[in-house]
Amino acid sequence: MTYCVAVRVDRGLVLLSDTRTSAGVDNIGRFRKTFTYENPGDRAIALMCSGNLSITQEVRTSLSRAIKESQADPEIETLLNCATMHRAAQIVGDAMASVQQRYRSTIEMQGSAADATLLLAGQRKGGKPRLYMIYSAGNFIEATADNPFFQIGEHKYGKPILDRIITPETTLERAAKAACVSMDSTIRSNLSVGMPLDLTVIEKDAYSFRMRRRIEADDDEFLSISESWSAALRRGFEDLPTILD
Amino acid sequence: MTYCVAVRVDRGLVLLSDTRTSAGVDNIGRFRKTFTYENPGDRAIALMCSGNLSITQEVRTSLSRAIKESQADPEIETLLNCATMHRAAQIVGDAMASVQQRYRSTIEMQGSAADATLLLAGQRKGGKPRLYMIYSAGNFIEATADNPFFQIGEHKYGKPILDRIITPETTLERAAKAACVSMDSTIRSNLSVGMPLDLTVIEKDAYSFRMRRRIEADDDEFLSISESWSAALRRGFEDLPTILD
Repeated sequence: MTYCVAVRVDRGLVLLSDTRTSAGVDNIGRFRKTFTYENPGDRAIALMCSGNLSITQEVRTSLSRAIKESQADPEIETLLNCATMHRAAQIVGDAMASVQQRYRSTIEMQGSAADATLLLAGQRKGGKPRLYMIYSAGNFIEATADNPFFQIGEHKYGKPILDRIITPETTLERAAKAACVSMDSTIRSNLSVGMPLDLTVIEKDAYSFRMRRRIEADDDEFLSISESWSAALRRGFEDLPTILD
Repeated sequence: MTYCVAVRVDRGLVLLSDTRTSAGVDNIGRFRKTFTYENPGDRAIALMCSGNLSITQEVRTSLSRAIKESQADPEIETLLNCATMHRAAQIVGDAMASVQQRYRSTIEMQGSAADATLLLAGQRKGGKPRLYMIYSAGNFIEATADNPFFQIGEHKYGKPILDRIITPETTLERAAKAACVSMDSTIRSNLSVGMPLDLTVIEKDAYSFRMRRRIEADDDEFLSISESWSAALRRGFEDLPTILD
């Protein structure tokens, strides 16, 4: 399993992913699920991955290869030179569709799932911060003011706190805290989501990354959020009125 | 969907169920999911149902018919005269297996799911309070001190608070509150779980029901728990340390 959450607020974008992969509980791995593409002063873009790992790695490889090849041939369109974030989502979607076309039927023939879902977030100069969810078929949807966050992977345990906290007016600091609480709840409840984490923050109109931070299992700040939240829940529960007289 | 939670603590049993059924979001119904069987002074037993409604109704009908027929023929074994709670679980499991045997293949042939899961909780004189989860095949598992609660239906949203609060030492009052918070979180996040609720409480060694309460959508005590919990979460969030400097 996987848990990735991306939030788009007025002041920018916050992304948080775990690193655990599992093909059954007896086959656990650790893979980074957040990948960044930056041309400082022009654009900062982050991609998060869930689903079949061979599929998402292949998608990333094709995106990176295009960037490399574009150094010799600037005609090649890539995440780093495309005109808009919408076009970037199309490029990623096309890469997904192409990889699915190549492998899906053989993967399914041997009984595995080829599905994969990606979150693409970023801003290029002249555009707004954008957040997209890209499906296996290469189609995608965009986050809006009414729906300012997307989750992929194990989304249920961590959704209630996001529903309560996140609005377009939420600051980046609060959005990052809410993402951490959401991840903490998910890690507690689903063994297939695990530390370390990758926290990525893109501030509006900076066209660069404000934060790309690996949060290890012994990270003091994350532990402090986790413990404060536990204590707040316990206190809050003690103060509830009774229903059984 | 459905959400039912049953808790077995040292002091007794607490059960809470919603009443919403859905065959698609355009086909919503309301059905009671908690059913009680009582012989005051001898036993109090409660059954909660999830899954295919035609299956669970048929199971209940056969259990009730046996109780009625046993008035004329006391040789017929029923939930109200069987020797132990374990035997009661077998009786319910046998009824489930028999109904599945009759309908499962035809239900599946037309593309629907025949799965159903039941929670059976109660105490008979001379025995301990027991809680069982009964599967479609008629087999079952029992709650233990290590795993003092069971959930059926949409279990994820409401699990974290139970994990944090429920132990065998938890009082019935706290267990009822935790069940309400768990249900409140689930109702907020899943449209297919809805009010009104049914709260059932069996106190240890009482052999009768301490509470069988229908909680309507405008129930003051439930609303008060829901609002206090929201306020506690908001306050707790405000007090969290920062992760983004």
